[in-house]
Amino acid sequence: MSPAAEELARLILAGDIRAAARLMRQVDDDLPEAVEVLKRLHAHTGRAWVLGFTGSPGVGKSTLTDQVIAAYRGQQKSVGVVAVDPTSPFTGGAILGDRIRMQRHATDEGVFIRSLATRGQFGGLTASTRGVATVMDAMGKDVILVETVGVGQDEVDIVRMADTTVIVVVPGLGDDIQAIKAGILEAGDIFVVNKMDREGAGRTAAELQGMIAMRGHNVNSDQPWTPPVIMTCASDGRGVDELIQAVAGHRAVLLAEDGRLLHARRRERARMELLELVKNRAMSLLIKRLEDGQRLDVLAAQIASLERDPYSVVEEIMGSAAFKN
Amino acid sequence: MSPAAEELARLILAGDIRAAARLMRQVDDDLPEAVEVLKRLHAHTGRAWVLGFTGSPGVGKSTLTDQVIAAYRGQQKSVGVVAVDPTSPFTGGAILGDRIRMQRHATDEGVFIRSLATRGQFGGLTASTRGVATVMDAMGKDVILVETVGVGQDEVDIVRMADTTVIVVVPGLGDDIQAIKAGILEAGDIFVVNKMDREGAGRTAAELQGMIAMRGHNVNSDQPWTPPVIMTCASDGRGVDELIQAVAGHRAVLLAEDGRLLHARRRERARMELLELVKNRAMSLLIKRLEDGQRLDVLAAQIASLERDPYSVVEEIMGSAAFKN
Repeated sequence: MSPAAEELARLILAGDIRAAARLMRQVDDDLPEAVEVLKRLHAHTGRAWVLGFTGSPGVGKSTLTDQVIAAYRGQQKSVGVVAVDPTSPFTGGAILGDRIRMQRHATDEGVFIRSLATRGQFGGLTASTRGVATVMDAMGKDVILVETVGVGQDEVDIVRMADTTVIVVVPGLGDDIQAIKAGILEAGDIFVVNKMDREGAGRTAAELQGMIAMRGHNVNSDQPWTPPVIMTCASDGRGVDELIQAVAGHRAVLLAEDGRLLHARRRERARMELLELVKNRAMSLLIKRLEDGQRLDVLAAQIASLERDPYSVVEEIMGSAAFKN
Repeated sequence: MSPAAEELARLILAGDIRAAARLMRQVDDDLPEAVEVLKRLHAHTGRAWVLGFTGSPGVGKSTLTDQVIAAYRGQQKSVGVVAVDPTSPFTGGAILGDRIRMQRHATDEGVFIRSLATRGQFGGLTASTRGVATVMDAMGKDVILVETVGVGQDEVDIVRMADTTVIVVVPGLGDDIQAIKAGILEAGDIFVVNKMDREGAGRTAAELQGMIAMRGHNVNSDQPWTPPVIMTCASDGRGVDELIQAVAGHRAVLLAEDGRLLHARRRERARMELLELVKNRAMSLLIKRLEDGQRLDVLAAQIASLERDPYSVVEEIMGSAAFKN
């Protein structure tokens, strides 16, 4: 490890915000030296509680996150926020709007907010999010809030990284509920019906209760935790205390019996993280090999002209030396 | 190739619906013999026009698809529909509702509708969708409509598979526009503002026009096709004829000069398809190796207990024989 990397790790472990921001940029840019620092930091992680927030656009996640930050700050807890955004070159405004909603915490030394953009196919958003969470954890943040729009597979994976996963919906979301992927519903530890004054809030809560009951019967009727459904109004803060209490309750259950359930969950997280990292590396390697000498372009042209079929080509590639035992 | 597979291919090429349905189930279930049939069918594809429809839940994609099917049937064209759904065990009703909306075509021999569920991380939804489209193409369908909720990376890839990609939005979608991923906006050949009677329809259309103009300047000011923005009301069919005409216009542009642009697009599609297929196969192989002897579980436990860091573990795995040149 280079002296610069050593120094960066030391500063981050001492809680230095600028050093942490520097490393996060390096993680974002996939710089190899960032990995050396992350390796060093890993042994100093595990203390922070990772709290995942997910829900469709427009359910008020950012406003709710803002209230949750305020509640934890009121308890003198330090907070890290990782906001994962499906950005677009055309919609910078909306994202900026979200950030501004949390802006009142921007000058608070105890709050560290970091946005991550959705990466391309092989970019590894889950890996980047984990990297940032590792840095915040090593800095000594008490709570790390990971906020995502719960839509794609990447985001299901990100949600599964949390110690406590909060799923946010709004009343009468109707067809939209189908956009919440099965994997995310199954990963929910706490459900929030935000905008509780809207018509149909009670019915939405009842529907969620029904889903939870069904899930309980499907998987195991003797489950140690039944996800509560909490009504909130993020704009004026109603229900936020109940949410914070529910998180504390869930945490207590995971920490019981020497943290048996927490350790199981974190092992599962490590397993997923490892697979994601290996997948990204293997795919980069593979694409590099295929693109060597335009091999991929030649094969694609042959398939498009119907000269060859894609399945035989894949078998040929998989049979090549690179994939042999 | 087994005699059963030979016979299946023969029946499908003759347009047999039950044989096609059987192969699609086999593709869905990832049966190896399905691949043998797909190989045979590949040489008989390329004639169908693949039309992608994407948009958030609730924009009326299914109703619009239904109208488009009716319009093509009115032109005596045969139609295949692949509906890609983010299903959930809890929300079967919503999906069923969508299917029922298209039900009036269920008894029409010229229409073949097939739903595909979102698969898990390594399941390869793009590959499954391509498989189904290949079967419909080989059957002799004139038009293949691929309908997806445009959210995750999987779906961006699916949308990119189309010859003509139609992006459907509704007026005043506000924050929701940020949920349409950059990749999807860039892939749009035609934009539809559905529910045109709603307030703000004109403004939404103008916003889309603005994006398209911006995109034109960014990429190439000499583009052969400028995506039109079409207002529709899927529930009563207004605007559907304009949409069908726009598709015909886009098709004519791609087919000009001996199909130069179409060939380029299909080469790109073949390239993406090939990468996806190789990725799925490589990941299955990798996971099988890692799970051999619980190696993955042991490594995950070591990472979770902070004994080892994930980055060093990944380097160890990548350095093993399986990934050497």
